[in-house]
Amino acid sequence: MQHTGTLAVSPTEALKHIQTILRTQAVERELAERSAGPRHDLQAELLGRQQQGTLWREINQLHPADIAFILENLPLDERHQVWDQVAPHHDGGVLLEVSDAVRGSLLEHMDESEVLDAAERLDSDEIADLVPDLPQEVVPTLMERLDPANRERVHSALAFPDGSVGSLMEFDVSAVRADVTLDVVLRWLRRHGSLPAGANMFPVVDRDGVLQGILPFESLLICAGDTEVADAMRTDAISFHSNDPAADAAHAFERYDLIAAPVVNLHGQLVGLLKVEAVVDHIQDSTQRELLSQAGLRDEEDLFAPVWKSARNRGLWLALNLVTAFIASRVIGQFEQAIEQIVALAVLMPIVAAVGGNTGNQTLALVIRGYALGQVTDHSFRRLLIKETAVGLVNGLTWGGIMGLATLALYQDLGLATVMFVAMVLTLAFAALAGAFTPAMLQRLGQDPAYGSAILVTGVTDSLGFFIFLGLAAVFLTA
Amino acid sequence: MQHTGTLAVSPTEALKHIQTILRTQAVERELAERSAGPRHDLQAELLGRQQQGTLWREINQLHPADIAFILENLPLDERHQVWDQVAPHHDGGVLLEVSDAVRGSLLEHMDESEVLDAAERLDSDEIADLVPDLPQEVVPTLMERLDPANRERVHSALAFPDGSVGSLMEFDVSAVRADVTLDVVLRWLRRHGSLPAGANMFPVVDRDGVLQGILPFESLLICAGDTEVADAMRTDAISFHSNDPAADAAHAFERYDLIAAPVVNLHGQLVGLLKVEAVVDHIQDSTQRELLSQAGLRDEEDLFAPVWKSARNRGLWLALNLVTAFIASRVIGQFEQAIEQIVALAVLMPIVAAVGGNTGNQTLALVIRGYALGQVTDHSFRRLLIKETAVGLVNGLTWGGIMGLATLALYQDLGLATVMFVAMVLTLAFAALAGAFTPAMLQRLGQDPAYGSAILVTGVTDSLGFFIFLGLAAVFLTA
Repeated sequence: MQHTGTLAVSPTEALKHIQTILRTQAVERELAERSAGPRHDLQAELLGRQQQGTLWREINQLHPADIAFILENLPLDERHQVWDQVAPHHDGGVLLEVSDAVRGSLLEHMDESEVLDAAERLDSDEIADLVPDLPQEVVPTLMERLDPANRERVHSALAFPDGSVGSLMEFDVSAVRADVTLDVVLRWLRRHGSLPAGANMFPVVDRDGVLQGILPFESLLICAGDTEVADAMRTDAISFHSNDPAADAAHAFERYDLIAAPVVNLHGQLVGLLKVEAVVDHIQDSTQRELLSQAGLRDEEDLFAPVWKSARNRGLWLALNLVTAFIASRVIGQFEQAIEQIVALAVLMPIVAAVGGNTGNQTLALVIRGYALGQVTDHSFRRLLIKETAVGLVNGLTWGGIMGLATLALYQDLGLATVMFVAMVLTLAFAALAGAFTPAMLQRLGQDPAYGSAILVTGVTDSLGFFIFLGLAAVFLTA
Repeated sequence: MQHTGTLAVSPTEALKHIQTILRTQAVERELAERSAGPRHDLQAELLGRQQQGTLWREINQLHPADIAFILENLPLDERHQVWDQVAPHHDGGVLLEVSDAVRGSLLEHMDESEVLDAAERLDSDEIADLVPDLPQEVVPTLMERLDPANRERVHSALAFPDGSVGSLMEFDVSAVRADVTLDVVLRWLRRHGSLPAGANMFPVVDRDGVLQGILPFESLLICAGDTEVADAMRTDAISFHSNDPAADAAHAFERYDLIAAPVVNLHGQLVGLLKVEAVVDHIQDSTQRELLSQAGLRDEEDLFAPVWKSARNRGLWLALNLVTAFIASRVIGQFEQAIEQIVALAVLMPIVAAVGGNTGNQTLALVIRGYALGQVTDHSFRRLLIKETAVGLVNGLTWGGIMGLATLALYQDLGLATVMFVAMVLTLAFAALAGAFTPAMLQRLGQDPAYGSAILVTGVTDSLGFFIFLGLAAVFLTA
């Protein structure tokens, strides 16, 4: 990436640079404290101050997104040191860009007037994004200070549920009327001095604010000035309802290569504009959340959160894991007698469970993806079930056969080898079913099919694998 | 989502509709075959043909991305039935939009002239995207038919490695010279009839094609016509090298809310344009691939791929899983004597391994995310290691304590309960280390830190958990 402008280095480079300077200073401070000479002390301090001055200037020349990146990746003490030096006009932007997990640690370090100052510089939709994280006592003062129109907008932005188009859109949208000429629009534009950033068209509305179509910017360049907006506008453009799921909008942006789209309320009136930049952020956030949630990290975690906070964030998941593992363990407990007779069962049983868990999770990943992309209909789910079970059977025959032979080689016991083989085939087939049914069940219960399904599937396949393997062994091998 | 234009329904709705019609027809055909009356037969057939005619018309009114979505979600026979009816002018667009896994099944069903016809309608960068999947014998003919400039472009597009900016950019970019006036640009635009889609600026180049800056479209509306491009252009815009990693470009688009950015070669000459639509596709593809690869599905899988193909796609992963499970099993094998004496060990040992695996994978998810976002420096890695180990210890003390008490309640054996407690604490601490070191090691070896690390971490934590628990038991509990 090249920056011909203000950004001389990538954010990762800037981060490394800052880490080096902060660390060198810490070391120098320590050395100075140890050495007795006051002269050396003074020298080091002057040098340190000079370096630091340059550093703060450099940081304030970065884009708020880059400052946010750097703050996220500094441990708490250094983070606060840098945050104190960020210029007030950047504060609001940086607070918007940092992850939810880190925002709290920055707000903690600001007094009320700083928070108010930062928030007041933002747009109403941006303020609405911040409000949930602001200290309770600041919010009423902030709302009071806004003018009535903005206050109204912040309130309605707060009313849109997370994951709706309304929560992603911008309220501040310039629309044009269908019954004016392009010259009127151009005159307005020249007075205004710039086109709305990140859009490629104006929404066109009638007298009541009802959306009529869109006026692409290029019409302003190409059509004659006395053309009416109504004749230059396109009426086949895609628009969204503020209550549409953000995921649907993201798919539409991806499919139809949109840059911006008007958002309307139930009466068809224009209420905002959804821009591709908000959609990109949404896609990144939701996939990152999905990747983390599959490992049981519900919230984004500050890389440098206090240990107890991190432990708590993961505790629920570990507790759920402990419960499923405990159930699997009780399944084994039912076969203590068989294990006492044939200790090899204890040695081999984790293999069945591990490969079963893996198979279940492969099917699971496919089905979750299918739900995310809107691919799973009743018809295709039936087909998918049949196919996945067949794949499970084929893999069971293959790898079960191999494990059967390995068992035979290790223990010279044909009975045990046969039990191993049959158990693998059955477990893998059932695991595929579990991998398909678990997200379908969660979806039907109105839950996110991704969250928690991996641990449920693993729990089921563990218990199943132990039950099938030990059960077969108890029936056919023990006296 | 609202479509005021051609799209009456969402793609998922269209899919359900098509599935219903195709299935109804299949049922009717079967009924007609069974019933003897030739009159009923004819009636049903006429009705069927009429319905089908409407259906094909409706399908061809959809956006190529929607047709692609529908084809991806039909089983092979129905997919070919629909594909046959897609109008030739859509063929190229649909082939570009379908997933790699599905593309093959469509190409198989086309003859050479259809393939050539579809490919020739595309831009050079689009042709380059298709070439790797085209039948070998078609490619030379296709290349011959292209004009020399296009052929050159396809060749250079093919030379860019997957995941580079060059592989995502468009070659066909309209640039303006710095020494002309805005009026010249406007005249050219009016002749041309439209602005480049999906861009918000023109790259500005000098006589040698070296990038000088960008001319935002709004300058054309706002500045006077006799202004020179050099005076209206912005020189602080972000541009990319064609060899830059696509992931870096994606981060930049996300951070700086870009719509389009110029791409240059090593000499600073403009070679293409990177648009946000390509970046969005890249983000979606790579995160979906990451989600699937964590479950061991290396390739995108056609939901309706033949069973043996799917089984093969997952085989390598299952084999790797079998190896790690086998190693863990051999660890247990070393303690057969201990298990013979205390069968409760076999019952309890999977709990230690399961919770250890979970802890390791939580750390893993955080570290992989850190690598993906460029957050992990040497400095922060050390901090992270200390923090994660501490979190592992805290969780080990908590949940190990609970499991120790549960063990005491179940077996009334203080020694066994103590072994359980100590084993959980140690396993969870080591699991956190394994979760941090595994992706770091893969990264240092030049591998993708996400691919394969989950199975490695689980393998290590399983073996470790069994070794620590059974080892402690063997030393302290058995005679």
